[in-house]
Amino acid sequence: MSADLRTIPTPRVVVDRARLHANIESMQARATRAGVRLRPHAKTHKSPAIARTQIAAGAVGICCAKLGEAEVFADAGIADIRLPYPVNPANAARVQALQDRLRISIIVDSLDAAREWATVMRRSGRRLDVLVKVDVGFHRCGVDPDAPDAVDTMREIAGLDGLGFRGLLSHAGHAYHARSERELQEIAAREAAILHQLAVQLRDISIAVEEVSVGSTPTARFIDEQRGVTEMRPGNYVFFDRTQVGLEAAAIEDCAMSVISTVVSRPAPDRVVLDAGSKTLTSDGVRGFSPASGHGMVFPSLEATQPDASIAIERLSEEHAVASVPADHPLRIGDRVRIVPNHSCVVTNLADELLFVDGLSILERVPVAARGRNS
Amino acid sequence: MSADLRTIPTPRVVVDRARLHANIESMQARATRAGVRLRPHAKTHKSPAIARTQIAAGAVGICCAKLGEAEVFADAGIADIRLPYPVNPANAARVQALQDRLRISIIVDSLDAAREWATVMRRSGRRLDVLVKVDVGFHRCGVDPDAPDAVDTMREIAGLDGLGFRGLLSHAGHAYHARSERELQEIAAREAAILHQLAVQLRDISIAVEEVSVGSTPTARFIDEQRGVTEMRPGNYVFFDRTQVGLEAAAIEDCAMSVISTVVSRPAPDRVVLDAGSKTLTSDGVRGFSPASGHGMVFPSLEATQPDASIAIERLSEEHAVASVPADHPLRIGDRVRIVPNHSCVVTNLADELLFVDGLSILERVPVAARGRNS
Repeated sequence: MSADLRTIPTPRVVVDRARLHANIESMQARATRAGVRLRPHAKTHKSPAIARTQIAAGAVGICCAKLGEAEVFADAGIADIRLPYPVNPANAARVQALQDRLRISIIVDSLDAAREWATVMRRSGRRLDVLVKVDVGFHRCGVDPDAPDAVDTMREIAGLDGLGFRGLLSHAGHAYHARSERELQEIAAREAAILHQLAVQLRDISIAVEEVSVGSTPTARFIDEQRGVTEMRPGNYVFFDRTQVGLEAAAIEDCAMSVISTVVSRPAPDRVVLDAGSKTLTSDGVRGFSPASGHGMVFPSLEATQPDASIAIERLSEEHAVASVPADHPLRIGDRVRIVPNHSCVVTNLADELLFVDGLSILERVPVAARGRNS
Repeated sequence: MSADLRTIPTPRVVVDRARLHANIESMQARATRAGVRLRPHAKTHKSPAIARTQIAAGAVGICCAKLGEAEVFADAGIADIRLPYPVNPANAARVQALQDRLRISIIVDSLDAAREWATVMRRSGRRLDVLVKVDVGFHRCGVDPDAPDAVDTMREIAGLDGLGFRGLLSHAGHAYHARSERELQEIAAREAAILHQLAVQLRDISIAVEEVSVGSTPTARFIDEQRGVTEMRPGNYVFFDRTQVGLEAAAIEDCAMSVISTVVSRPAPDRVVLDAGSKTLTSDGVRGFSPASGHGMVFPSLEATQPDASIAIERLSEEHAVASVPADHPLRIGDRVRIVPNHSCVVTNLADELLFVDGLSILERVPVAARGRNS
């Protein structure tokens, strides 16, 4: 390809291929060391090419959030997909079609939904693998482990004909709101303790709990300490982003994804306008321990190896980023910058393809095949 | 099509076709009554089918934010496109390719960029139509009208060989932050006054100012009072959204776009989880006069004609909306709701197609042909 990052139309989402591969290897090594299976969440990249790299490195399969994503990865030949999502039984026909092609499992978090799934599966003479989702403090989905009937609910689900109970699963999404490394560590410890206690109670009544699955990129560093866990499901680590840097899950130089953007206006000495807006970066804010704000870390040139904290993207329109700069900042109209976004998973979902790069060179164009597959 | 809104996989972005057409007719009538040309911004719908409806109703052409969008609409035969965007001169070849196919104009907001454009256009023996962008208070792009050299800058731009100076253009984006109807009206009045004064000064030195172009959906209702304006460029009005309701630019029943979503979990009596997250609705917040928060207005069933304020979407994950509800709320797993999003323009940009509907019936599938064309 003759174009490089100095000449391609901007904004453009690029991925440093060497960093991507290093991130994949490094998380795999962490899982292997801890003796747990790695099943990365593919929502971050939505790209079969990257899923294949993860599996080649040792992942046992992938996770998808939605059936639409799973269908794309099934088409690409991925053989084992878990949906840590309370897929509604109205989608039974699609789930069964996927069962004909690969190994698939979902989560349930209520007896009602589990019974409905059991009924539709029994009716077609099939069995669906399920894990029970446990709410470990994020308070999104999941069975409340403190509810007096929690173990009874799980026992009933495990006994339903038409379902294959595989184990317990959690997502400590509240880790993204942790205010310190110590709080993160406590969240990971509590997650493992809750799941372990439930697993023991279930095993005590002779229910096999084959899988105890946890997953989030910020808590992944504590996997060694999470006793009883069999599987981890981080997703974001392939690219990382400004939030992961803020949560100390990654160093700046681990961030594999960035957005190449051009200065399109310098309307005032202290203001620069870039061509990447919320239709490229999304409006997602930044999280992390240290006070941070704005819309991404800006590297002041394509060659710069460190972000320039004096360039602060203060607001996004749909197609503009408005940044404050010191009045004597040298950025001029036409200059190109590199932005590490706040949240890479949602940036991917806006792009039809990712450009894999090495420095300024474009190595491959990788389709985001499952982009927009949210149903 | 046999599927209807009770059976299609969710989440799904739908558009009430009758309301869409009514919104298009109504804005056209407003422009015609005020004696100004309507040139809608196509970023909201990114769909040639809708642009054609706007032009058939009387629009003189469309606006696009980015060249990538313009290229899609050019392919669809749209003959007159303005980019109210400070397109970087590095894109000269693409602009010239569009000139061969249709009438195109852009904005400039600095003498430097204008000179660069003039040079590249002269070199190829062409002329590019430009309007000078004026900052009327949004402080994004635009020449500062209070700068002592503002008129001199415009005079110099108008005199550049290689450019065809057409007039002045503004976007009162700060209207979205207005805290009252009165403040909105003042913003519209100030916008028109600033442009009118500049136009008079330019005409006094014999510079033709053919076009005075303003545009935003919330200020569109004041077009009658905006003396001297020749063109208006609202975009959002085709669909409207919760923010426009908050700014009293639309009634709830004018909102043509909604997202059909399914309840996937009811993990606690006071919590409901829907399958539309930030990868469908985006994280864009709501704006408007009255205190509002959350992620869209929720209609409690597909048939409901009014939103249910007791269902408050308090947070979004990528594929989940977490809503608080009264403990006795009847919503159950599998129920379908309709969500009018906070910001329709960004929702469109996540969808590959819009379903045009009439009640529960699907009438057409309309491709969002310019989705993701942000460069």
